[in-house]
Amino acid sequence: MSSTTQNRGELVTPVTPAVDTEGVSALLERGRMLATPVLRAAVARLAPPMDAVAAYHFGWIDAQGRPSAGDSGKAVRPALALLSAEGAGARAEVGIPGAVAVELVHNFSLLHDDLMDGDEQRRHRDTVWKLYGPAQAILVGDALAALANEVLLELGTVEAGRATRRLTTAVRKLIDGQAQDISYEHRERVTVEECLEMEGNKTGALIAVACSIGAVLGGADDRTADTLERYGYHLGLAFQAIDDLLGIWGDPGATGKQAWSDLRQRKKSLPVVAALAAGGPASEQLAELLSADAQKSDAEFMDFDEAEFATRAAMIERAGGREWTSQEARRQHATAIAALSEVELPARVRGQLAALADFVVVRER
Amino acid sequence: MSSTTQNRGELVTPVTPAVDTEGVSALLERGRMLATPVLRAAVARLAPPMDAVAAYHFGWIDAQGRPSAGDSGKAVRPALALLSAEGAGARAEVGIPGAVAVELVHNFSLLHDDLMDGDEQRRHRDTVWKLYGPAQAILVGDALAALANEVLLELGTVEAGRATRRLTTAVRKLIDGQAQDISYEHRERVTVEECLEMEGNKTGALIAVACSIGAVLGGADDRTADTLERYGYHLGLAFQAIDDLLGIWGDPGATGKQAWSDLRQRKKSLPVVAALAAGGPASEQLAELLSADAQKSDAEFMDFDEAEFATRAAMIERAGGREWTSQEARRQHATAIAALSEVELPARVRGQLAALADFVVVRER
Repeated sequence: MSSTTQNRGELVTPVTPAVDTEGVSALLERGRMLATPVLRAAVARLAPPMDAVAAYHFGWIDAQGRPSAGDSGKAVRPALALLSAEGAGARAEVGIPGAVAVELVHNFSLLHDDLMDGDEQRRHRDTVWKLYGPAQAILVGDALAALANEVLLELGTVEAGRATRRLTTAVRKLIDGQAQDISYEHRERVTVEECLEMEGNKTGALIAVACSIGAVLGGADDRTADTLERYGYHLGLAFQAIDDLLGIWGDPGATGKQAWSDLRQRKKSLPVVAALAAGGPASEQLAELLSADAQKSDAEFMDFDEAEFATRAAMIERAGGREWTSQEARRQHATAIAALSEVELPARVRGQLAALADFVVVRER
Repeated sequence: MSSTTQNRGELVTPVTPAVDTEGVSALLERGRMLATPVLRAAVARLAPPMDAVAAYHFGWIDAQGRPSAGDSGKAVRPALALLSAEGAGARAEVGIPGAVAVELVHNFSLLHDDLMDGDEQRRHRDTVWKLYGPAQAILVGDALAALANEVLLELGTVEAGRATRRLTTAVRKLIDGQAQDISYEHRERVTVEECLEMEGNKTGALIAVACSIGAVLGGADDRTADTLERYGYHLGLAFQAIDDLLGIWGDPGATGKQAWSDLRQRKKSLPVVAALAAGGPASEQLAELLSADAQKSDAEFMDFDEAEFATRAAMIERAGGREWTSQEARRQHATAIAALSEVELPARVRGQLAALADFVVVRER
């Protein structure tokens, strides 16, 4: 029985892992240090103006084209890709093209999703479609996805072909997940299972590949790669559960998103879906309110003041959606850790993968 | 000296090739027969509703979801991919995954370009973004691009990796070409060289890969593949020159586009650019008129009646843009044919590739 159906709704003891913050920071920093120059060189291959639009998106330049030390994200994926190479007994550097390819795919999906979702802000700045128009968001997204394949395939090895195939599978799942996400926004009821499937596609699949791609480039067999992907898939679901909590209760100063951002977009994220599935008076009251919200136009919804979103957040919490999602993050974390014991890995690598998993469930941005 | 700079502006004797229509029809039909079932099976892997949206785009179902024997295009690319396999001494069937991958990439670019360009009609029917909304056009386009890699890479061979790498290069050029096309629409003056570069990226690169991909899957070396791509690149430029003529003077009943469609969109296509570069009174008169047009809003432009477009078309013709483009198609055709003599090919395959090139420059849709 997988952890996605296990323990649903029952309270497990929340164990907050004691995170080796320093160790994790060093891992994330190494990922950035090794992957960023190669990522920048890849992006610089794009024809103008796409190179500049992509550089803006990554936070390397500002809207006026001036160099910027912008926030380009947590860089969990590159760190995982390098550890993945070490997991197969190769040097971390062997994972660099994998780290870069995964970052390129991740950012392809951000560019397209922001446009499809109408999101105007990311990492405290205007999104690409908002600043440069929809066509640039489509084009640059397309270009980053193609560049990801190019960076891998120009290695010219059998391993690169296998890595690209795994990455392509993840890209297809990303797209499936976004299609589900969009279709759920128009539906009144989404089950917890549907939500988890969508999040597995949208977030789990690419983090899964980040965890196998370095190993594949380092010559790992399919069984090892599959097990590392299982670790990454559950890590991704833990990551997304935390993201869903931050999307409602996160501190805008830390997340870079508007307060209550997922509620403003009427996202059927895990806390909402779990609260609706919980039953009981608070759950029914929430269902009634959201059902009335669904009748409203986007414009009417935009006019809501902060207090109205705060009311909805409080109802979700009262119906148990916040607690359930928090427990779910810990369940997925535990399943990820368990997968690590099913694969032969150098002890240091196993410890660092576990530490990254711990970090993912306690982060606040 | 390449044919793109050779003979510019001088009149070469227009030689209309005598096309082996029956032979070409059989080749196109074989391409459709062998590739379509595999293409349909690949598209059927997409999650709903993307499978249906893609099936609509390909003309397999209508807007109500009923099976349709719609026009899914000329299918020149699949025919080329199968011939390409035979060119390397392999069976035509070896080229099928290549034919399917190229068709998937071609249709990915149509879906995204129609959205970026705001085109509402394709092949006599509403475009996907018009019927299903922008998000579906983005998603399904992304999915087809990923599927193209999947269809190749799941072969699991070294040749498939090489084929995917060539295809990825073409995808990047397609995107570069679309970026150039968009940027040219906002510029008053575009040189003939810039226009040819854009068309080489937008059309030449993918037809080039259609001509090498089957050979690569059949084990051809890089030199053979490169030469076949050179044939395909010039064939693509000939194809696009004809397309540019049809975009202004084509019969809407045959092309499925509105009359004067490229003029309505203020496209800086070859006839326009060549007419502006020609110099002389007709050219200057055209420049003045187009410069005044550029000041108009899209809405004002939409209000133009047929006669105003007819006037512009006549001025382009008087300035020599129509004749130059027609000659350019023949120059590119001749260069494509010349490339065929630089590669060892079975005599039948060489003859059929030549016949397809002949067909491309005399087609009327």
